[in-house]
Amino acid sequence: MANHRSTTPPRRGSPPDRRSHPRTEDAGWRTAVTRIAPNEILIRGYAVDELMGRLSFAEAVYLILRGELPTPTMGKLFGAVLVSSIDHGVTPPSTLATRHVATTGARLSAAVAAGVLGFGSFHGGDIETCMRFLEEGLARVRNGESFADAADALLQSCLDGGRTPPGFGHRIHTQDPRASRLLQMAHELELDGEHVQMVRAIDRRLAARPNARPIPLNIDGAIAAVCADMGFEPELGNAVFMIARIPGLVAHANEERSRQHPMRQIDPEAGRRRSPPRRLPETRK
Amino acid sequence: MANHRSTTPPRRGSPPDRRSHPRTEDAGWRTAVTRIAPNEILIRGYAVDELMGRLSFAEAVYLILRGELPTPTMGKLFGAVLVSSIDHGVTPPSTLATRHVATTGARLSAAVAAGVLGFGSFHGGDIETCMRFLEEGLARVRNGESFADAADALLQSCLDGGRTPPGFGHRIHTQDPRASRLLQMAHELELDGEHVQMVRAIDRRLAARPNARPIPLNIDGAIAAVCADMGFEPELGNAVFMIARIPGLVAHANEERSRQHPMRQIDPEAGRRRSPPRRLPETRK
Amino acid sequence: MANHRSTTPPRRGSPPDRRSHPRTEDAGWRTAVTRIAPNEILIRGYAVDELMGRLSFAEAVYLILRGELPTPTMGKLFGAVLVSSIDHGVTPPSTLATRHVATTGARLSAAVAAGVLGFGSFHGGDIETCMRFLEEGLARVRNGESFADAADALLQSCLDGGRTPPGFGHRIHTQDPRASRLLQMAHELELDGEHVQMVRAIDRRLAARPNARPIPLNIDGAIAAVCADMGFEPELGNAVFMIARIPGLVAHANEERSRQHPMRQIDPEAGRRRSPPRRLPETRK
Amino acid sequence: MANHRSTTPPRRGSPPDRRSHPRTEDAGWRTAVTRIAPNEILIRGYAVDELMGRLSFAEAVYLILRGELPTPTMGKLFGAVLVSSIDHGVTPPSTLATRHVATTGARLSAAVAAGVLGFGSFHGGDIETCMRFLEEGLARVRNGESFADAADALLQSCLDGGRTPPGFGHRIHTQDPRASRLLQMAHELELDGEHVQMVRAIDRRLAARPNARPIPLNIDGAIAAVCADMGFEPELGNAVFMIARIPGLVAHANEERSRQHPMRQIDPEAGRRRSPPRRLPETRK
Repeated sequence: MANHRSTTPPRRGSPPDRRSHPRTEDAGWRTAVTRIAPNEILIRGYAVDELMGRLSFAEAVYLILRGELPTPTMGKLFGAVLVSSIDHGVTPPSTLATRHVATTGARLSAAVAAGVLGFGSFHGGDIETCMRFLEEGLARVRNGESFADAADALLQSCLDGGRTPPGFGHRIHTQDPRASRLLQMAHELELDGEHVQMVRAIDRRLAARPNARPIPLNIDGAIAAVCADMGFEPELGNAVFMIARIPGLVAHANEERSRQHPMRQIDPEAGRRRSPPRRLPETRK
Repeated sequence: MANHRSTTPPRRGSPPDRRSHPRTEDAGWRTAVTRIAPNEILIRGYAVDELMGRLSFAEAVYLILRGELPTPTMGKLFGAVLVSSIDHGVTPPSTLATRHVATTGARLSAAVAAGVLGFGSFHGGDIETCMRFLEEGLARVRNGESFADAADALLQSCLDGGRTPPGFGHRIHTQDPRASRLLQMAHELELDGEHVQMVRAIDRRLAARPNARPIPLNIDGAIAAVCADMGFEPELGNAVFMIARIPGLVAHANEERSRQHPMRQIDPEAGRRRSPPRRLPETRK
Repeated sequence: MANHRSTTPPRRGSPPDRRSHPRTEDAGWRTAVTRIAPNEILIRGYAVDELMGRLSFAEAVYLILRGELPTPTMGKLFGAVLVSSIDHGVTPPSTLATRHVATTGARLSAAVAAGVLGFGSFHGGDIETCMRFLEEGLARVRNGESFADAADALLQSCLDGGRTPPGFGHRIHTQDPRASRLLQMAHELELDGEHVQMVRAIDRRLAARPNARPIPLNIDGAIAAVCADMGFEPELGNAVFMIARIPGLVAHANEERSRQHPMRQIDPEAGRRRSPPRRLPETRK
Repeated sequence: MANHRSTTPPRRGSPPDRRSHPRTEDAGWRTAVTRIAPNEILIRGYAVDELMGRLSFAEAVYLILRGELPTPTMGKLFGAVLVSSIDHGVTPPSTLATRHVATTGARLSAAVAAGVLGFGSFHGGDIETCMRFLEEGLARVRNGESFADAADALLQSCLDGGRTPPGFGHRIHTQDPRASRLLQMAHELELDGEHVQMVRAIDRRLAARPNARPIPLNIDGAIAAVCADMGFEPELGNAVFMIARIPGLVAHANEERSRQHPMRQIDPEAGRRRSPPRRLPETRK
């Protein structure tokens, strides 16, 4: 795909160019994402109308982020990644930011944008941090350590520093049902590679600590392992979470706008009131 | 699903409550979107871990927006809707806003949020406007007019006022390949209802004008017709566009951050430089 | 200042140009706001280094918004407008959106942007609505009605429709101390024109209603009257509020980031806990 | 002012609390920014209606950011800081992001928020970086080095690493007229302390390099020195820039909305077209 690439190498680390030189166009700059010509739209080189009906939306997301088509099993697993994080109720700060903006009568796009601004660092940011954490462990494995020893070394440095390992622990869940399901799917689709092996090793060591408060694998950790095994770079970890969560933000903004008083005071606990669950129809199982 | 509903009716039209009354919590307020309990996450009543691997991401988006599961053919058509609008290159103002923020060294989420703020009214807003426009025509049909006569009446009022009919015309494309593909899929999946019929009638009348500049059906118009036939309310038209376009914004922000100089001057024409197209492998056709 | 103006007339109302024509640069487009040349920055034609120390920040804001220098009394009154709305504690939805984003570890700019998104319509939007409302009354006065009769007519149509008059009523305050102070200053500076007269007439009629719940003039109404008398167009009403409120949003975001736990659950009532007031030193009175 | 302070110490560095513990309200949390009670609004303890007409807006900004009243000379200098950065034309990426969102027909608040998202790191972020840079130099001075030697050491480490010193160099200006004016005012108001002394020392050493490309002190560097001497912490450096620049973003968004075609392609060079300068009236000098 070299022909799609910009010929200008990234030089983010060289600020002298930034302040002292005039801002000039990068001559001949090309984007590798999408090309537009009259009656033609090429997404990473593929005609979008040819993709419609042939790729699922999840597969198209994979393509536009990574530049290449996923295999069908990767498409299926990546779809499950996106479904897993579609929403987490009213309590997350991103959802509350969206609702607080929506209650002022702002447009849907403004409310959703406010929620997006909460993604990163402490909220969704664990995917990226956990990807790097697993890489650290795998570097040890490649140097000859066993997965168990590498896990012990990683955990030791976290717990010594009073830090919960990234991708583990949850405020509300003592066992994150999304994490187990995702690892199970990766296994069934034969897509569980070394990152999944690493995260499982850490999980086993954490569970084996006697008398300790449970620190379960969470969905961020499971996504980190599964996406790293599919070849995602850590920089895209947050991107995956952001794309997954947008429909949830939209649904909250839309509910706030269409069914609530403007300028109301929002109760963050409302999402924790119980309601009877529904079951998927048999044909969907 | 009545038990999921807030018991408080929306009263957006009654501002006295807003300014003169204290802001009090709506007692017992419940969200219908997602319920959270320890180790349980219910999306519109369904356990998210049960949805993973059983619904495509597009189907989960449909569920969270509309509150009910789509049929499998609706899921497939809605997936094509989302794929169709995943990106449109560097030229749209939303993409340029995202890139201008990304070049300052801002986080991915900030760059994406800036792009989201461009959605609405003149950019993506045609889906909603066109949905209402088609409804207007269908009201005539329900009153006994033929589709052709209703189309003529709609067009007359637009062209008299110097307005291009919403969902028609494009700056770059004289025939929008996404629009034809989407209507073709709706037909093959037997999901082309009265809104598609209406939009086709308008398209035929526009094409029949002698010596006139072509005003082709665009992707906004095709999405409007197809989504209205699937039961979407006009209020959600923009939401669909927003969800579809996020991965494109993410890809542009990520490319800007990882492959370009910070603080560069961005050339909006770069996305129009040609590159050789790629073909889907045979197994994908 | 005609030479600063774009020669292209605005044509917002003519969408055919939008969808069917290519997006081309407006040839020779000029901005009237600020011109940049090497070693020269002209704000509305004035060298910014000449303005520094000669105009107060409020006067510079007036200049950049309106294109002309304010008189010294106008500068003083406009400064009081900005001070009046610098903050309103933790309860407004804009402040809560800022704090919810700040608690995720986002950057200051992201937290502030989220708050800005709440400005408009139901939050700060009353300034613009009230400016138009006062204009409506003044149109009656110009047609020969007395201020009292015009006020009666305006109020009748509001109260008949169940609407609180824009610029009146407050959730928390039964007498808004900012509103009285602003009108008093306008009077002392001899800047109370017909819009202030109109708002006072409405206030008198509202106060004269027997046995009615008090609907006091609020700060939005006072700003609307005072700014309209200084020549501001209604379109800039929200702009004034936004500029005034930013320092408050910044202070909340900064406090959240520097003094609170990340990802905490924010109590919107915290801003209502009492604390002893401080008095200005004598030299400041 | 201890009674205004939260009793909860910040613990940003201790993530275990974040992921593993439930999100609970910080009991008894108080904000130090603004307290609200019926008919009373206290900004950092002062009644806002008492501040109106007694503090300039710049002084009120200083108060809300720093928690204490500025002296009158500090208020004057801080006003000049804000005026200096009120706008820099169409070219900065923040302004372009604002205009690109404005051209889509978005609300004023959405357009301004998009611009705000560009503030930080490479755009406005130099104020904070330069404040820390000056502190580094002053640490050397406190250890007995002369200002000139400290400046040499700082510059050596920058130039060795191929970095332009923060607060120096400009894309467009070879001598930044705002920087000279601000340092001159600091001197006249007798507010030039050790940070100004440090920045001047660096400036002198840079100017003395034979045959070197000029790297002039820029406005970010001047603001950094002057604000640090007034007691601002580096964390607030960006905040000052953001507050100063908002009126410019508003003016650009407003011009775009009211005077240009929607969805136009924006020429970033437009702001560099010359126009005749205006002079302040004699009474303002």
